[in-house]
Amino acid sequence: MKFEVTILGSSSATPIFNRNPSSQVLNINERLYLIDCGEGTQQQMLHFGVKASRIDNIFISHLHGDHYLGLLGLLSSMHLNGRTKPLNLFAPAPLKEIIDVQLKYSETVLQYPINYVFTVPDKANVIFDNQDIVVESIPLDHRIDCTGFLFRQKKRNRKLLKDKLEEFNVPIEYYTALKKGVDYTAPDGTVYKNETLTSAPEEPKSYAYCSDTIYSESYFKQISNVDLLYHESTFLNDMLERAQSTYHTTALQAGQVALKTNAKKLLLGHFSARYKTLNELLDEAKTVFPDTELAVEGKTFVIEY
Amino acid sequence: MKFEVTILGSSSATPIFNRNPSSQVLNINERLYLIDCGEGTQQQMLHFGVKASRIDNIFISHLHGDHYLGLLGLLSSMHLNGRTKPLNLFAPAPLKEIIDVQLKYSETVLQYPINYVFTVPDKANVIFDNQDIVVESIPLDHRIDCTGFLFRQKKRNRKLLKDKLEEFNVPIEYYTALKKGVDYTAPDGTVYKNETLTSAPEEPKSYAYCSDTIYSESYFKQISNVDLLYHESTFLNDMLERAQSTYHTTALQAGQVALKTNAKKLLLGHFSARYKTLNELLDEAKTVFPDTELAVEGKTFVIEY
Repeated sequence: MKFEVTILGSSSATPIFNRNPSSQVLNINERLYLIDCGEGTQQQMLHFGVKASRIDNIFISHLHGDHYLGLLGLLSSMHLNGRTKPLNLFAPAPLKEIIDVQLKYSETVLQYPINYVFTVPDKANVIFDNQDIVVESIPLDHRIDCTGFLFRQKKRNRKLLKDKLEEFNVPIEYYTALKKGVDYTAPDGTVYKNETLTSAPEEPKSYAYCSDTIYSESYFKQISNVDLLYHESTFLNDMLERAQSTYHTTALQAGQVALKTNAKKLLLGHFSARYKTLNELLDEAKTVFPDTELAVEGKTFVIEY
Repeated sequence: MKFEVTILGSSSATPIFNRNPSSQVLNINERLYLIDCGEGTQQQMLHFGVKASRIDNIFISHLHGDHYLGLLGLLSSMHLNGRTKPLNLFAPAPLKEIIDVQLKYSETVLQYPINYVFTVPDKANVIFDNQDIVVESIPLDHRIDCTGFLFRQKKRNRKLLKDKLEEFNVPIEYYTALKKGVDYTAPDGTVYKNETLTSAPEEPKSYAYCSDTIYSESYFKQISNVDLLYHESTFLNDMLERAQSTYHTTALQAGQVALKTNAKKLLLGHFSARYKTLNELLDEAKTVFPDTELAVEGKTFVIEY
């Protein structure tokens, strides 16, 4: 099952050169999930061939402009392009007021419904659940209410081994039980162990998105052992004081988060506009956590083992 | 005196490929005036080297998203980049509410003041006046309240001919009167005609920006004889009915506006996303008004005679 993330924006606060404000799109089993939506996200989607019509769920971490100012343009384009199917929007409650006031004055009535799920900043909550995944909000510690998002694939059924089922004449009505791991007892009393007739499914994968936060161990337990950890790293560690006063993380600290939470891999993002190139940020995180990459525009990271 | 316009966005409603929503920057005597501010305007400014710090006046025609959704990001970047000098914002009154609600929830207090001048849609008004120009709002006819903007250079003083002033020993205290066109009478009674001592200034130039409107003669008188007319041309004329039902103009009609108002030159813009290339729009307008160009991203048009 596909599980990959494409970066649409990597910049903090102000855009710079070819770096846009935060946005990413997750593709999980060919369903697209948009995470944050900074200004220019819809243009980035056009640029990288991401179809807005395939997005049914949008997650907004907080209400600093670099994380949501592209949303109204995207919602409007979905409307103008004939969308009628519902859109789920996971975000701090005031976002509804911000959207409504703008729709009101543009005299726009969207042709599709938005289902709002309001995030709360002080408690991890399951906010979404479908056949593929469960999504939890991650309480982060930023200047304003802010949550990250943890995407966990569900445990999948065991896979039937068609040739073995034929060989042992297993009736079709046992297949569902076999997928769940039950053994098969034939009419003659022979017991076939489940492992003989099925193979193990892929391990469920997980992705944690930690957008804007001061270094804080409060969310470490929740994100422990993820396959891929995206963590903001706004500054180099020589600007630790500035990072702390603005409730941001340094690249060194992001490496420490990955190390302490036993992440399999780390993505750095949300870079300050002061860094024209990003190698120093990458190198600094790697001193602590070697398997680190830069979440830069247009790159797709496949979550594997 | 410099008088030129650079196009930052040419698209209507939804962005497409390399076409961004409406925005333009006027450079008049090295002062920059931003007109409309669609999503991604600040990124376009970075791309084309337009410094936000040089902009003190922003004009927003109306509150459809493709004309203002880039504004909050730009205001925010100005704040983060240390701006303290006031910004004048000419726009429909509800824009203040839209800005204020977003600043409230991001807990941002801008470090510079915004002076709002609210436009009214039903009457042409002088809304700005400085040493170089006068700006009038142009009542347009769109689905929601919408004004265009007419920028007129002020008539300048006549230019002193230094060699003639020396030749005829004209005392310095007469210079101000000479610049206004007054003749000089010497102590011996000799009258020197003003034209002998001064030369004519450049003719004042004018630029009309007609953003979103149905074809309507109601504003023709106000914009007559401009040096450069920017007019929306969302559709080809084979979509006239659609243009009328959405309160837009066709390329053919834009040509007719330029012809009937005696514009010196016409710029077409605000192109529907359905047109992958723009030649047909240009050709259609030229059948009526030959001196027409496409207002596409990155192009600068110098307003000359």
